[in-house]
Amino acid sequence: MKTEIISKNELLAHWLGHRNLTRQAIEKFPEEALFNYKVEGMRTFAEMIQELLGIAVPGLQEIVNNKSGELNEKFSYTTKAQLLQAWDEATPQISALFDKIPTERFSEEFNLFGQYNSPIIHSIFYFIDNEIHHRGQGFVYLRLLGIQPPFFWERD
Amino acid sequence: MKTEIISKNELLAHWLGHRNLTRQAIEKFPEEALFNYKVEGMRTFAEMIQELLGIAVPGLQEIVNNKSGELNEKFSYTTKAQLLQAWDEATPQISALFDKIPTERFSEEFNLFGQYNSPIIHSIFYFIDNEIHHRGQGFVYLRLLGIQPPFFWERD
Repeated sequence: MKTEIISKNELLAHWLGHRNLTRQAIEKFPEEALFNYKVEGMRTFAEMIQELLGIAVPGLQEIVNNKSGELNEKFSYTTKAQLLQAWDEATPQISALFDKIPTERFSEEFNLFGQYNSPIIHSIFYFIDNEIHHRGQGFVYLRLLGIQPPFFWERD
Repeated sequence: MKTEIISKNELLAHWLGHRNLTRQAIEKFPEEALFNYKVEGMRTFAEMIQELLGIAVPGLQEIVNNKSGELNEKFSYTTKAQLLQAWDEATPQISALFDKIPTERFSEEFNLFGQYNSPIIHSIFYFIDNEIHHRGQGFVYLRLLGIQPPFFWERD
């Protein structure tokens, strides 16, 4: 009998599945649209992806080191290949850092990026939910560009 | 010291917070656009909301009763008020049903809607993630309609 609804490793696997799907969404974009197409009042999908890159590994590093830093969501990537490479390089870092957070710390408060004070589990959910949110927006961009998005349930 | 990363009640609270935000998104839509506006190849936001309504309570009922049924995501709501009422009526049902799932069942396999066989925790995450995904799409619809969406972090 299991007394927890989800283990730490299962939550990581869930996140990594989402990251696979987001990677597929990046791949579907023509390079020009990835960096230039946007809906009025919104950002390009490349900018959203850079926000995600600026949050995941740096956020986990702060948590692991128990030391708040500053949020940086601007990078100088200009090609799809660079963006995908950064995405892929983040994956093993996310796994390694996530592994280092002791289970009992997930309920501890931490001041993420020096401005979001909440239990660590809330920050982790924010990382995942924010990715799902922006990827959903990327799916609409793809439709607006006449491109079929990947399937939501394909996470491998 | 806590040995689980998130409790059952915390996960429910997290979902209910997302449901509050989705409710705000529904409210932002002009009624006509809610039921008629869509991007080529996609559904209206009202249709997406009806999918969410067709999944949450019925899915939890199946899990609680340990009996698969059929997915129905079509309803006959034609006004924003009806949609919001259905949304609000689902909330206490979600809470009550969720409460009835014993912690140890979350890792059990269940064949949701007779077609998605997976651990119950995966189905619950699907309910939440799918809502975040479609709400993100609804945010783009709002932007395309020239309307500012609610803030992603406002869940109360």
